[in-house]
Amino acid sequence: MADAAVTTESRTVEVRKPVLGKNAQLAAQNREFFQSRRLTVLNMVSSPGSGKTAILQRTIKDLTGRVRIGVVVGDLQTDNDARRLRESGAPAVQITTGTTCHLDAEMVAKAMSGLSLDQLDLLVIENVGNLVCPASYDLGEGFRVAVLSVTEGEDKPLKYPVIFKTAHVVLVNKSDIAEVVGFNRELALDNLHRITPDARIFEVSAKTGAGMEHWYAYLEKRIAQQRAI
Amino acid sequence: MADAAVTTESRTVEVRKPVLGKNAQLAAQNREFFQSRRLTVLNMVSSPGSGKTAILQRTIKDLTGRVRIGVVVGDLQTDNDARRLRESGAPAVQITTGTTCHLDAEMVAKAMSGLSLDQLDLLVIENVGNLVCPASYDLGEGFRVAVLSVTEGEDKPLKYPVIFKTAHVVLVNKSDIAEVVGFNRELALDNLHRITPDARIFEVSAKTGAGMEHWYAYLEKRIAQQRAI
Repeated sequence: MADAAVTTESRTVEVRKPVLGKNAQLAAQNREFFQSRRLTVLNMVSSPGSGKTAILQRTIKDLTGRVRIGVVVGDLQTDNDARRLRESGAPAVQITTGTTCHLDAEMVAKAMSGLSLDQLDLLVIENVGNLVCPASYDLGEGFRVAVLSVTEGEDKPLKYPVIFKTAHVVLVNKSDIAEVVGFNRELALDNLHRITPDARIFEVSAKTGAGMEHWYAYLEKRIAQQRAI
Repeated sequence: MADAAVTTESRTVEVRKPVLGKNAQLAAQNREFFQSRRLTVLNMVSSPGSGKTAILQRTIKDLTGRVRIGVVVGDLQTDNDARRLRESGAPAVQITTGTTCHLDAEMVAKAMSGLSLDQLDLLVIENVGNLVCPASYDLGEGFRVAVLSVTEGEDKPLKYPVIFKTAHVVLVNKSDIAEVVGFNRELALDNLHRITPDARIFEVSAKTGAGMEHWYAYLEKRIAQQRAI
């Protein structure tokens, strides 16, 4: 429905711009709030089932004692992910969006009140699993991380360009089964470079931990930079 | 944006209902048109990368000489899928939706003009890869097929209930790598039965062909029923 226009009796109402205009204002407020606290904030987007929560679980555990992480997580239904993340040791707030296919800045602003932000180094916003809608909604984050699983096919950056174009980091996940699923690594990386030439790409496996240390080093660098501003 | 309401100066415009109302009318027209031709039409929905196109490629090849299949396929960008499907021997029309996260009845009505429907037994509408938006948009199809890949996790029916509730058939795909990815088959089937108790479930692998014959038998039965009406 992103570009939809509604024709009623005698007038056409443009839907998308007012919604996004209001969201942009609230996102700017979130951003200012985060920056005033020198808090590093990332917005994590991907298809359903690409492994966002598994990556976060491993990141939280492996960085225990080094980085204090809190999570706001969005799903249509269930609080499964928030429960999984709390079991890994991080405070986590679940947003259930009902039929809405993305988080927006207002939902994030409300959810933040459930976290003690002063006790965090990093706030992760795990978006609804969707390669379309979340692309258009700024949440006020410092940077955006897209996850692409090797099981999804090498062509996904070409077919869903907006979400990959707006990503500062791409985590290519499930590298442990790349061979089994016949993943063409060169083609996938070529497609990513074409669509998002400036993004940092890390090939990882949340399951085995392979490649995760580069992702952690990147995160710690961003947190240090944010503190030094 | 599914439930979004736009507040402008002095009034609130409910977005969703008029859009869906218009779509329902056009979907009813499509449905009447398909039924007048006794054409079997299915709407295929899933996450990005779950294997919709691979399932169709194999179905088209394996049913050559038995079922004449045409495809309307939706993606945000690229005509990769239509090209893949044509190589498998089926006429295929690509719809590129830009930033819109689903097909609608009007897009399908326009795209149909690119196919010789009189020469088809089955029209497949392959929707945009998305587990949220396509759920709310009737295209006028006879039945809806959801694909769930074993790599996506057992909890997806619980987290995206609307799309699974509206499915008449669920194809659990990539069964050949179920063991490698640690797929908990019983849990996934339990979750599917909870959310969509009446759906027919077929466990398949588009790669190896395992289980596909049950899916083909089901398709041929539906086509025969539609012809007999």
